[in-house]
Amino acid sequence: MRIITLMTDFGLKDGNVGVMKGVIYTIAEEKKVEFTLQIVDISHLISPQNISEAALILYRSAPFFPGGTVHLVVVDPGVGTERRAIAGQIGNQCFVGPDNGILTLWLEHAERSGVSTRFVHLNRPEFWLPEVSHVFHGRDIFAPVAAHLATGTSLTMLGSPVSNLVKFSYPKPKKRGRIWYGEVIHIDHFGNISLNILKEDLEGGAIVTVSIVGVVINGVVQTFGDHPAGQVIALFGSTGNLLVSIVNGNAANQLKAKIGDTVEVSLED
Amino acid sequence: MRIITLMTDFGLKDGNVGVMKGVIYTIAEEKKVEFTLQIVDISHLISPQNISEAALILYRSAPFFPGGTVHLVVVDPGVGTERRAIAGQIGNQCFVGPDNGILTLWLEHAERSGVSTRFVHLNRPEFWLPEVSHVFHGRDIFAPVAAHLATGTSLTMLGSPVSNLVKFSYPKPKKRGRIWYGEVIHIDHFGNISLNILKEDLEGGAIVTVSIVGVVINGVVQTFGDHPAGQVIALFGSTGNLLVSIVNGNAANQLKAKIGDTVEVSLED
Amino acid sequence: MRIITLMTDFGLKDGNVGVMKGVIYTIAEEKKVEFTLQIVDISHLISPQNISEAALILYRSAPFFPGGTVHLVVVDPGVGTERRAIAGQIGNQCFVGPDNGILTLWLEHAERSGVSTRFVHLNRPEFWLPEVSHVFHGRDIFAPVAAHLATGTSLTMLGSPVSNLVKFSYPKPKKRGRIWYGEVIHIDHFGNISLNILKEDLEGGAIVTVSIVGVVINGVVQTFGDHPAGQVIALFGSTGNLLVSIVNGNAANQLKAKIGDTVEVSLED
Repeated sequence: MRIITLMTDFGLKDGNVGVMKGVIYTIAEEKKVEFTLQIVDISHLISPQNISEAALILYRSAPFFPGGTVHLVVVDPGVGTERRAIAGQIGNQCFVGPDNGILTLWLEHAERSGVSTRFVHLNRPEFWLPEVSHVFHGRDIFAPVAAHLATGTSLTMLGSPVSNLVKFSYPKPKKRGRIWYGEVIHIDHFGNISLNILKEDLEGGAIVTVSIVGVVINGVVQTFGDHPAGQVIALFGSTGNLLVSIVNGNAANQLKAKIGDTVEVSLED
Repeated sequence: MRIITLMTDFGLKDGNVGVMKGVIYTIAEEKKVEFTLQIVDISHLISPQNISEAALILYRSAPFFPGGTVHLVVVDPGVGTERRAIAGQIGNQCFVGPDNGILTLWLEHAERSGVSTRFVHLNRPEFWLPEVSHVFHGRDIFAPVAAHLATGTSLTMLGSPVSNLVKFSYPKPKKRGRIWYGEVIHIDHFGNISLNILKEDLEGGAIVTVSIVGVVINGVVQTFGDHPAGQVIALFGSTGNLLVSIVNGNAANQLKAKIGDTVEVSLED
Repeated sequence: MRIITLMTDFGLKDGNVGVMKGVIYTIAEEKKVEFTLQIVDISHLISPQNISEAALILYRSAPFFPGGTVHLVVVDPGVGTERRAIAGQIGNQCFVGPDNGILTLWLEHAERSGVSTRFVHLNRPEFWLPEVSHVFHGRDIFAPVAAHLATGTSLTMLGSPVSNLVKFSYPKPKKRGRIWYGEVIHIDHFGNISLNILKEDLEGGAIVTVSIVGVVINGVVQTFGDHPAGQVIALFGSTGNLLVSIVNGNAANQLKAKIGDTVEVSLED
């Protein structure tokens, strides 16, 4: 078995995600692969052109896939311009997409942890669809390349080595004295407010208060269900990020919090 | 081939459904299974924390899958609390999820029809991810257990036998004289209003009127297309439930009907 | 490998798409097929009962699938009435669904290009579920037939030959002098406005202006990213249709354009 995951901002109505799957399976058929090629959707509801949202979700989801999985990301406001198309490998996970910052968090992770990376600039049209439009490289370049990569074509066949990938400046939390200053980086389907402060950042320090949009929350709890519906709580999410939530409610809506809002977290002396 | 179905209230944006699929396929890879493991999405748009909605959709969908299918349901407001995690079998279908009532309709069905059931309390961490968060047991416990169950691990390996599963009180229709009193239990994507009165409840009795939110509908029809667009009709849905619909329209929106609204159905003398 | 694609107006909440997949895989199991049967979602967000929208998306997506793929389309306002159920082949792609016009664009394409077509009226209940409801032929007739067709049952087994399929009148653009008159046929997830004027219609003629909802756009550009955010542009989409877009914005919302709005395209002398 091999897996290709898909992440786009295409939405679920227009059939374009299905078209990319058709392209992938057509190439798998042509190459007569003997294993099963599974395609897994990560998200097609990335906000239009929102590279940092895609980068965060890719960073959180890819580690849970088997080694050799190809993660195809098409959030591509620069489609058809001079921005590069790339494919590559970080540790044992493979990636295909535009070189526009979608790998920022993965590349920072690789630097921090000494994981090896190698990437190529996709400049070999023989691995693309015969006709390439100016507006749908997901179909014409990225899906074919992902299919080839997942079915045995080596990275070095697909393009020329490249190393200086585009990164954007991801907001880092700052500490002054006993206070961590951070910001809202994601709001999930339940309205949980995800902050850029990780449990590991606190190095075991105990949280006294979390202050956000004028609300002060005392301490952190372990999970939702230990507290009455409607209570505003702070807790650590499944990726280690500090969350602000409302038990059985939608914290982002009720507190009117949004991406980029600031937060202050005070620690015990 | 083996199948795992997924039902959650996670939505489709944040990548958490994809993460569970990555966990499942990673385990299938590690166990080097030789058959194809297909994952089928049932719904990820269950209203947040809505156990009765999940229970109804699970009850309606699972019978159409091959024997041995594992139905993984993660609608789990009690995640990380003392609520049990369970897995088990009802007839030839398997289920994995929190013990919070999601199986209510299946368990009632099993009692009515004498179908055998067996369940275990998931208390063997060796079948979970090595690290278990307090907030995402779908990823850390339920997906791994579903993967093991679908790839050959026996139920008895996964935990200790348990029988007194949680059930909620599902609203039953009542008959007085020639009148059935019921309520709205589901509103579908088209706005069709589904009632808790089944065709079989009526034992062949002919419907004279259906009264709901102040509207009286005369008789039932067979299907939508036999009637002009905009007409309010009553008919039996594909699961045997009485429906109130508007031909080519959205009955729930136009009649302002909602879950729990009462209905009266009068039968012929 | 064989592929079945699915397109419906069922939405993603109620589990009905999953039920059709369960029916398909149950039949594949019963027939003990040795290849992998993949099911690919094209769209389940077709506007309710919108046959022309389904026809357009089917026309655009199906060509990207391997030969022998079965495209199952259930947008079926006439379910349970006298409208026919059909299955058939156009070129190397197979189709199953109601005979209500969903194949209009494919049939016109076949006529234009001399591609062979053959269809049958699905009148052999032995290939359906044992019980057929009046309201869910997607589950009871179309999914079983698609499963049989994709797993080796020949078209001629499934029903009697039929040729006069239902077509609706698709809006064609008109040319008078140097002006093409067209209309809006689709609005995608990004708000791009798709017109019924194809690049090939213009036979190389250079566009001077595109006029729509009172806005006049000068010339066409190649792609989005070459222009500043917020600019209204005209360009050719990935299917050859002329598009009106706003760079990094939602053109349909901002210009208040809708399906059926007229457009005038003036060409160079």
